[in-house]
Amino acid sequence: MFEAAELGRKVSKKEFEAQAPDLRVKMLEMQQALRKCDFPVIVVFAGVDGAGKSEAVNLLNEWMDPRWIVARAYGPPSDEERERPEFWRYWRDLPPKGQFGLFLSAWYTQPLLDNVFGRIGKAKLNDRLERIAGFERTLADDGALILKFWMHLNKKEQKKRLEKLQKHPFHHWKITKKDWDNWRRYDKFITAAERIIMRTSTGEAPWHIVEGLDSRYRSMTVLTTIHDAVIAHMELRAAEVALREKQKKRKPVKPAVPDTVLGDGATILSRLDMKQSVDPDEYSRQLKVVRADLHKLYRKVSDQKLSTVLVFEGWDAAGKGGAIRRMTSALDARDYRVLPFAAPTSEEREQHYLWRFWRQLARAGRFTVFDRSWYGRVLVERVEGFATEQEWRRAYAEINEFEAQLIEHGIVLMKYWVHITKDEQERRFQSRAETPYKRWKLTDEDWRNREKWDDYEQAVNEMVERTSTLNAPWTLIEGNDKKFARPKVIRELCKRLKVAVD
Amino acid sequence: MFEAAELGRKVSKKEFEAQAPDLRVKMLEMQQALRKCDFPVIVVFAGVDGAGKSEAVNLLNEWMDPRWIVARAYGPPSDEERERPEFWRYWRDLPPKGQFGLFLSAWYTQPLLDNVFGRIGKAKLNDRLERIAGFERTLADDGALILKFWMHLNKKEQKKRLEKLQKHPFHHWKITKKDWDNWRRYDKFITAAERIIMRTSTGEAPWHIVEGLDSRYRSMTVLTTIHDAVIAHMELRAAEVALREKQKKRKPVKPAVPDTVLGDGATILSRLDMKQSVDPDEYSRQLKVVRADLHKLYRKVSDQKLSTVLVFEGWDAAGKGGAIRRMTSALDARDYRVLPFAAPTSEEREQHYLWRFWRQLARAGRFTVFDRSWYGRVLVERVEGFATEQEWRRAYAEINEFEAQLIEHGIVLMKYWVHITKDEQERRFQSRAETPYKRWKLTDEDWRNREKWDDYEQAVNEMVERTSTLNAPWTLIEGNDKKFARPKVIRELCKRLKVAVD
Repeated sequence: MFEAAELGRKVSKKEFEAQAPDLRVKMLEMQQALRKCDFPVIVVFAGVDGAGKSEAVNLLNEWMDPRWIVARAYGPPSDEERERPEFWRYWRDLPPKGQFGLFLSAWYTQPLLDNVFGRIGKAKLNDRLERIAGFERTLADDGALILKFWMHLNKKEQKKRLEKLQKHPFHHWKITKKDWDNWRRYDKFITAAERIIMRTSTGEAPWHIVEGLDSRYRSMTVLTTIHDAVIAHMELRAAEVALREKQKKRKPVKPAVPDTVLGDGATILSRLDMKQSVDPDEYSRQLKVVRADLHKLYRKVSDQKLSTVLVFEGWDAAGKGGAIRRMTSALDARDYRVLPFAAPTSEEREQHYLWRFWRQLARAGRFTVFDRSWYGRVLVERVEGFATEQEWRRAYAEINEFEAQLIEHGIVLMKYWVHITKDEQERRFQSRAETPYKRWKLTDEDWRNREKWDDYEQAVNEMVERTSTLNAPWTLIEGNDKKFARPKVIRELCKRLKVAVD
Repeated sequence: MFEAAELGRKVSKKEFEAQAPDLRVKMLEMQQALRKCDFPVIVVFAGVDGAGKSEAVNLLNEWMDPRWIVARAYGPPSDEERERPEFWRYWRDLPPKGQFGLFLSAWYTQPLLDNVFGRIGKAKLNDRLERIAGFERTLADDGALILKFWMHLNKKEQKKRLEKLQKHPFHHWKITKKDWDNWRRYDKFITAAERIIMRTSTGEAPWHIVEGLDSRYRSMTVLTTIHDAVIAHMELRAAEVALREKQKKRKPVKPAVPDTVLGDGATILSRLDMKQSVDPDEYSRQLKVVRADLHKLYRKVSDQKLSTVLVFEGWDAAGKGGAIRRMTSALDARDYRVLPFAAPTSEEREQHYLWRFWRQLARAGRFTVFDRSWYGRVLVERVEGFATEQEWRRAYAEINEFEAQLIEHGIVLMKYWVHITKDEQERRFQSRAETPYKRWKLTDEDWRNREKWDDYEQAVNEMVERTSTLNAPWTLIEGNDKKFARPKVIRELCKRLKVAVD
């Protein structure tokens, strides 16, 4: 695999100087053209120490306009980072559409070193590579161009390079005992590297292996590879976007048999007992009990630094806000945040749809309430046609993977669907329309959404079916009577927290 | 995840009889339309025993035209199957384009049971699921529609079903102790099932969870899901094919810097020492020695039931055939096969490009020589534009994965590139043209290929770079002097066999 990167290829100074001015202009022109495109370019540099990874990043920053470049290098995770799932720091740093992200020693470093130093075996390494491949696939499916450079030196050359740097008056401090420890494990390193490259060299995110011996050769190789790939991707992406627009206009296939026939159209939602109610005295009593429970548990949860993420989805006027307020009043305001999500901001629109949720993950020991969430992808975006069928179908897997990362990190994840019947919604809309201090809550959009009730109901049923897992089940709340719903929301949370703290 | 499949949904006999005739016609019409399409439909049935998997297959066979359906169920692997990589039997049974393949208890069964019975843990299960996802992705990337049905019953219902079958005068023999053993592990089974569904429910090959309680309900659900998905895929695929044709006509991006500048255009091939030669006496001596070596090793290899796969690629007139003959003459004719590959047959064209190689894998202890191979995808198909850039780029990963499966199975894999220079090729072409008994070997196509020498050379270099791995390296043969090349071919084989038998 590395044969082609051990040929001793060089670019002479004369050749370099002959080509450089022209190439520099081309890079800048490409970067300007990219700014108008609807995809980001994500460039990963990995490989052998001393093979020129950071030099490549410096050169790109120098030759292009750094205002449209996000360059990041990663060391051991900070406190802030350790308190969130591993990929949080990478999601946070993703470049917006039309811009470059240069990633140095990023998501590949830790799995590689863990394997080389014997901390994880082959099966565990494969698992982590699968997570990486999934991460890159998610971004590529959204249109991102991903380029990965593996900077290579053979064992002898690496030794020479390290020795040379060690003797250099300006650079000697760069070489530490750690570099030599790594060098002594060169063979293990290369075996692991080959596995990494094979497992994660996909059609959408291939590795480019670059010979790292000659700085002019490797600079030119990296620059031209990036240039040519971006130009090619612009054209490809334009064709994909055209196809996507066509698919969005596609009429759904008429079902062979009407849905109502299949099991009388029975669904998860239609089987809920919506008549359940609680009288006012009992409601006050229950609320007192469950909030006391929650308060006690919340202390334990805080002590144990457990994070809790709560997702609230539900019909308009289902009573999400009221349920959230009843719950959070048992918590200390410093420890929880309620994040309402409506349409994405302009900054968020320039990113992957999951980005705005990743960035909101809180530090350890906190409660984060998502009032509407990533499930918008398979609800409003599906029904309103903002996402193509392929996109929202793919989202089930993307969401499951996202939540799996939260859970693996030890986060308690609650997902509520607050349900009301269509009649109850009409009653509440009417009441809002008639009550002056509630009128602001009711918009034309609410009425428009209501017209698509059946489409939404189908989307909700499929969402629950596809994303209710043993570790992250949906909690369905029968919400026609708020006095029934509110204590249930808190009670279900307490059940889960009890399991988590024990 | 299984909530929606535990609602007790039923379709009444009356409803079923009202819908059945119309649905039956629709299924047949869909099947006829499919025959003209360029993709196969692969349907997998898995799930809880007694939930109606085989009934679904029977019904599909009954309601559609069985001439265009391949239906397969798998038990424990046969001798023939155990001697090949695990996926050989599935590749062999794939339906051609325009047809249905119904797979019962196929690639999901063994990983599921191995996990439930504690033979493999979570990490190993993930590995095997990753292999499955890769297999399905490879097929879906080629256009296949993949539908997977998980037939579900809850624990109580499964017990009831098993008891009912046990008492049934016709079916009681179907229920064995094994079924009850499995039932007792129901909870483990469902936990593993959820992991399987989450990990392998991809956009291109999603799982459909079907409630298995009522036979009319589940039949109708399976039939209509298949019908609607095939109709939708026809339209989608047509759009994809149109995009593909457009991409094939795309001109490649002009490189930012001419290739010759980058390291003086030095490549793996250009660095070979093509002047190496051997005089005739020495050649005879060497050949005798290496063939004796090979013969001895071949006996050991046969005893140990090791299989050997040899791939020969090289320029036209490079001397592949002669090298192969010198090698095989040391083997027993019963134990080796030489398979020349030219353009695919009409049957092969109806399948994935890897299919015709999978089917040729031999039983244990044999030598199989592929005279040209799966590398055609990244050589001739790339250069001649039969495959789009996305397709041949994707092929590197597909080929690495294919070869990884061979190697994991214990097969010794040798890959030769027999190299000659452009001048040497011309000399040989001329000699063929002038020698009456060699003239048949030379075709117009040889001259046409020669005109694209540079494109081929780039493709070969990239092929070696991308697919030379520690376990499956390329062996480059300097072929300008046949007397140098032929012993080297055998010597390199012996080296690898020696490692394998020890």
